[in-house]
Amino acid sequence: MSKPLILISNDDGYQAGGIRALIEALRPVADLLVVAPDGGRSGFGCAITSVSPIYNHLVCSETADDGRGSLELYACSGSPVDCVKLAFNILAPRLGRRPDLVVSGINHGDNSSVNTFYSGTMGAAFEGAHQGVPGIGFSLCDHHSRADFTPCIAPIQQIVRKVLAEGLPPFTTLNVNFPLAKAFKGIRMCRMARSRWTEELVEQHRPVTRTPYYWLTGTPVELEPDAPDTDRRALADGYIAITPQTLDVTHYGLLDTWTPPALDTDTPTTEEA
Amino acid sequence: MSKPLILISNDDGYQAGGIRALIEALRPVADLLVVAPDGGRSGFGCAITSVSPIYNHLVCSETADDGRGSLELYACSGSPVDCVKLAFNILAPRLGRRPDLVVSGINHGDNSSVNTFYSGTMGAAFEGAHQGVPGIGFSLCDHHSRADFTPCIAPIQQIVRKVLAEGLPPFTTLNVNFPLAKAFKGIRMCRMARSRWTEELVEQHRPVTRTPYYWLTGTPVELEPDAPDTDRRALADGYIAITPQTLDVTHYGLLDTWTPPALDTDTPTTEEA
Repeated sequence: MSKPLILISNDDGYQAGGIRALIEALRPVADLLVVAPDGGRSGFGCAITSVSPIYNHLVCSETADDGRGSLELYACSGSPVDCVKLAFNILAPRLGRRPDLVVSGINHGDNSSVNTFYSGTMGAAFEGAHQGVPGIGFSLCDHHSRADFTPCIAPIQQIVRKVLAEGLPPFTTLNVNFPLAKAFKGIRMCRMARSRWTEELVEQHRPVTRTPYYWLTGTPVELEPDAPDTDRRALADGYIAITPQTLDVTHYGLLDTWTPPALDTDTPTTEEA
Repeated sequence: MSKPLILISNDDGYQAGGIRALIEALRPVADLLVVAPDGGRSGFGCAITSVSPIYNHLVCSETADDGRGSLELYACSGSPVDCVKLAFNILAPRLGRRPDLVVSGINHGDNSSVNTFYSGTMGAAFEGAHQGVPGIGFSLCDHHSRADFTPCIAPIQQIVRKVLAEGLPPFTTLNVNFPLAKAFKGIRMCRMARSRWTEELVEQHRPVTRTPYYWLTGTPVELEPDAPDTDRRALADGYIAITPQTLDVTHYGLLDTWTPPALDTDTPTTEEA
């Protein structure tokens, strides 16, 4: 086998336009094992399925041809992270191989700043890093199902080829966000902007019973709109934003300064003095 | 109102023993707003519910009495993060208040090391930090539904009182794990151990059709078993492990050293040369 093996997943489901564009972008670069949810899993973050079993079925299988790598595409009933676990533990071993890289996306919508926590697309990329290979998530700042991913194709090929050639440090992912633009001004390395979602729930009522229920929605508020080095700033300036991310969420500053209480040997408090 | 307001959630559901123990521990400390899933949500991480609406119902309401704070307990159809968002956006405002702190747990099972990514308990604590208040997740290294949480009560009161009094830096959580022991040797501040799950899926087959399906399971492998400063080491030594965690997942080392490719202005590659 001369070509590397790339595992592709996403959170919009295997039929989404974004993953179709990603597959087309990477067919010339590698053999592809695609394991993606059988429907939308937006907002699934790093969720795993522990209370029910996971099913999958083979959607298509194509051999390598004319410089294009082979392709196996599976739809999976689980979360994006489940897809990656299924690929590493079951499906890739059946091919006698192990993925060299996990690439997730192209997401229909922005995964910059704190969105990375909620994103199933980034969950799959994180899971690649958990499995011991580099993970890359690609997202376009356009939620439409018919978003135009064409401008993303060449930069994706460049970034993926670089990571295949050079690797990434262990426990690391790249969170790559494309601004909504016909042409990009360049690529900027960024830190994660601090932002916050507000007005996050809309209340509605069922007919007849008037039972209230809530839809998640929200308005993002930038907490450092003037900072020059964030992913949000890069996107606003028309640049592709690459935020390198680590699985090590230890707050080292606080680790050095926070003094834990000395353990009481007394019985627990039951009433305030 | 003289008492602070603590929002409590978890991922094992409002009927779990761990959250009952947590409520009892914190009744003397604060007024409590409990918004927890209406059933088990283990492994939900930071997942949010975007494709269906969220329901909730009031389970019980008690006024402040004899030094014990007031209590309102809601069961919610959503994820742990949904619970926190519902509390901050809808339920606390109805009380004319805003939670001062989010406390999640006590989880039935270990959330140290990489488990923090998959944990709905830590998802709720992270969401507290997203909302702008400190978040603390408590977990006991015992998966049993009838685990004995008694030894955890006094340390939880001490840690929560300290955080209420002093706060935490913005975008910060504490991931507190208790070893399975009748008495703890002390509290140790830790970094997140590097570990990896292996053998993660078990294949089974449906009767008659023989359709294969998969259950998530797994064996953790320590990648740095001899490191003295990790959460895993503290737990193995019989200490309560506190790992301070940040929402800023930027890999600053890589941000300084990784050079992005210069953008090609050519058309995308369709075949390898």
